[in-house]
Amino acid sequence: MALIVQKFGGTSVGSPERIEQVAQKVAKFRAAGDDVVVVVSAMSGETNRLLALAKQISAKPTLREMDVMIATGEQVTIALLAMALNKIGVLAVSFTGAQVPIVTDSEHGKARILSIDESKVREQLNAGKVVVVAGFQGVDEQGNITTLGRGGSDTTAVALAAALKADECHIYTDVDGVYTTDPRVVPRAQRLDRITFEEMLEMASLGSKILQLRSVEFAGKYNVPLRVLHSFQEGPGTLITTDDNEDSMEQPIISGIAFNRDEAKLTIRGVPDTPGVAFKILGPISAANIDIDMIVQNVAQDNTTDFTFTVNNIDYDKAIDVLRATALEIGAGEVSGTTSIAKVSIVGVGMRSHPGVASCMFEALAKENINIQMISTSEIRVSVVIDEKYVELAVRALHTAFGLDASEK
Amino acid sequence: MALIVQKFGGTSVGSPERIEQVAQKVAKFRAAGDDVVVVVSAMSGETNRLLALAKQISAKPTLREMDVMIATGEQVTIALLAMALNKIGVLAVSFTGAQVPIVTDSEHGKARILSIDESKVREQLNAGKVVVVAGFQGVDEQGNITTLGRGGSDTTAVALAAALKADECHIYTDVDGVYTTDPRVVPRAQRLDRITFEEMLEMASLGSKILQLRSVEFAGKYNVPLRVLHSFQEGPGTLITTDDNEDSMEQPIISGIAFNRDEAKLTIRGVPDTPGVAFKILGPISAANIDIDMIVQNVAQDNTTDFTFTVNNIDYDKAIDVLRATALEIGAGEVSGTTSIAKVSIVGVGMRSHPGVASCMFEALAKENINIQMISTSEIRVSVVIDEKYVELAVRALHTAFGLDASEK
Repeated sequence: MALIVQKFGGTSVGSPERIEQVAQKVAKFRAAGDDVVVVVSAMSGETNRLLALAKQISAKPTLREMDVMIATGEQVTIALLAMALNKIGVLAVSFTGAQVPIVTDSEHGKARILSIDESKVREQLNAGKVVVVAGFQGVDEQGNITTLGRGGSDTTAVALAAALKADECHIYTDVDGVYTTDPRVVPRAQRLDRITFEEMLEMASLGSKILQLRSVEFAGKYNVPLRVLHSFQEGPGTLITTDDNEDSMEQPIISGIAFNRDEAKLTIRGVPDTPGVAFKILGPISAANIDIDMIVQNVAQDNTTDFTFTVNNIDYDKAIDVLRATALEIGAGEVSGTTSIAKVSIVGVGMRSHPGVASCMFEALAKENINIQMISTSEIRVSVVIDEKYVELAVRALHTAFGLDASEK
Repeated sequence: MALIVQKFGGTSVGSPERIEQVAQKVAKFRAAGDDVVVVVSAMSGETNRLLALAKQISAKPTLREMDVMIATGEQVTIALLAMALNKIGVLAVSFTGAQVPIVTDSEHGKARILSIDESKVREQLNAGKVVVVAGFQGVDEQGNITTLGRGGSDTTAVALAAALKADECHIYTDVDGVYTTDPRVVPRAQRLDRITFEEMLEMASLGSKILQLRSVEFAGKYNVPLRVLHSFQEGPGTLITTDDNEDSMEQPIISGIAFNRDEAKLTIRGVPDTPGVAFKILGPISAANIDIDMIVQNVAQDNTTDFTFTVNNIDYDKAIDVLRATALEIGAGEVSGTTSIAKVSIVGVGMRSHPGVASCMFEALAKENINIQMISTSEIRVSVVIDEKYVELAVRALHTAFGLDASEK
C-alpha cells in the first residue's frame, strides 16, 4: 500500500492501443492496493503537429498563445487514459495542469513550477480514484496556461510526487533501467538496481538520455525516490535515490561509464596572458548563447597561453566564428577546432573514498594506446576527451577495468 | 465605436489560411474603432478526429473525459487566431471557456450556461485587445471542463454578447444572410435585411439550418441583436432583432417560406375514443426518446378515432414498431406511415394583423393541385404536410403568391 506517481512519455501513449496497455499497467498497481497518480505527455507526434500548425500562421508566434495550443496535446492524452481506465473498471479522473493547479511563473514555453496545491488530487485519491494529470503544463498566478518546456512531463511527475510525499515516482521509458553503460556499445553492460541522484545527474548530463536532468535535480532536492522502468516490459527497473545504502561498502567504486559524441573542441593559441583573459574569450561565446562544457587553459609560455574548450556540436560553426573574431580583437594566434572528439566519463560516488580511480582510468586507456586530449573531474566523476574513433574501445576497456562486465550475457 | 461579439464556425477557421482571413476581417472592425470579442469553434474535422480517437478507446467513453478531450479543439483555434491577429499588429489574447469563466451546469456534453463573469474579458478589451474566446465550452462550479454540445459556439457568442451588453452579435456562416426561402429551390429568393427573433425561430426549427435554435432563443430572451453574415464576403447580412421596426406596416406579411423533407408521417386508425387516448398513443413514443412534431386527431366516428403525427425520418422505423405495439395493446386498427412527405411553412409576424393568410396559402397550393395532408398553425406560422415530390413546386408557388420574388435575379 504505497502512493506512487507514474509518468508515461509520448511514445508510451502514442496510440489508443498503447494507452490501453498503460491502463493495464496502472490497473495492476491499483489491484495491489497502491494509490496511483499518472502523469502523461502528449501522444508522440502531436506536439510537432501543433507546432507545424502555428508555424503556418506565424514565424514568431506569441509565446502565451503557443502554450495555450501546445497544452492541448497532454489534455487529449489525460482524457483518453482516464477513459481507458474507466473502461476496465478502474475509477479515474483527469486533471489539466491548471485544474490541479500546478502554479508556475509566467515564462511561457519554459515556465518553472512555483507551487502545487495537492488537495484536489488527494481528495480524488481518497475517493478511490486514479488521478491522471497532464504533464509539462501549469498555470501562472494570473490564470494563463504555461508549459514547462519539452520533456517537462518528468518534472511534473517529480514535483507532484514531492507535493504528495509519494513513496516512489516511476518514470516509464523505452529501457528497462539505467545501465552501467550503453549496451549497444558494451553487450556485457548491466542494469543497475540502484544509483544515487548525484551519479544519475552526472550520467544524464554526460549523454545518458533516459531522464531529464532537471527532473533528477528536482527529485534529489526533494528526496523523491525515482524508479526508471520499461513501459511495456515487467521488471524492477533502477531505483534512483539518496546515498543511504547500508551496504555501500560492497558497492562497486564506479557505477557507470558515460560517453558523449556530441561535443566539439575549440582551441585558441598565443593568447596574451593577462588577467581576465578567460572572460575575454568565453564571454562572447556565452553572449552568443553557446553552452561551454569543459575548459582547459595551458600554463603560460612566453607570456602567452593556449586555451581549449568544448561546446555542443550544433554550436560549433557559430563558436568558431565568434572565437576568430575574438582572436583578432585581442591579438591572439591561431584558432582551430574539431568535431571528431568524444567525451568518456567514469561516474561513481565510491571514488570519494577511493583515491587512485583516475590513474586506474588513465592506465586502462594507455593500455589501449588511446591518447587523452583533455581531462576534467568532479567529486564523483572523471571525464576525458579522446579521438571520436576510439570511443567504443575506450568504453569497453573501462567497463572491464572497473569490473562492471556482467558474468554472462 | 461599438462592442461587437463575432462568431466564426469550424469551416471559417478550417485551415491556417482561413484563420488568417478571419484575422483580417476582425482587424477591419478594430480599425473602425470597434471593440471586438471573437468566439471560434474547432477547426472543421478536428472534433470528428477526436471523437474517433475516443471511440478507439471505448464504445462508451466517460462523458466528463469526452469534454476534457473535445474542448481541446477550440483551444487550438483560439491560440492560432490570437497568433494571427498579433502577427498583423492587432493585440489579441485568447481565453478558454474555463478562463473567462463561462460557468455551466455539470451536464457533460450538453451543459447549459449558468453565468458568465465578463470582468476579465472587459479588462482585456479596456487594455485595447481583441479577446478570442473558445466557443462551445465552459466549466462547472467544481472546475470540471464542460461542453455545450455540438453547435454550441453560437450559444457562447450570444451569451457573451448578453453578458457584455454588446451592440451586436455577428454570426459568420457560409451564406450572406437569411433568405425568404432556399435560393437553390427558388432562384428569385431574396436576402432579408431584418427578421424578428420569433420568425427566425420558426424558420430555424422548420429546417433553415443557418443558426442554432438555442442561440436564437437565447438572443431573443436577452434581446441581443444577431447579425448573420458571410465569413469571406462583404455585405450587411441579415439582422435578427425584436419587432420594433417603426415602418413594420410596410413590411411584407410573410417573411419567408421554410420547408423540411426530414419528416415522416404515422397514422393509427380505429382507436377507441376514450379520454386519455392521446397519451396512450404518444406516451410510448416519447418514452422511446422520439420527438413528435405535428399531431392531428380526426373527429371520432363510431366511437373510434384516427390519429396522425409526424416524427423525424431517422426515428421512423422505431416509431412504427412502438406504434404497432400500442395498437395491439389498446385494440386499435391499422398502423400505416410514410417517409415521403414534406412540411412547408409560411412564416411572418405580419400574419398577426392580417387574417386570411392561411386561406391564401391553401388557395395557392390548390391552384397547383397539391393535396394538403396535415395542417398546423402558430401565431406567426402556417405549416402544411404535402407529398414530398411537390415540395419545390409548393415553395415556388407560395414564394410568388406572397410577393417575395426578387424583381430581377
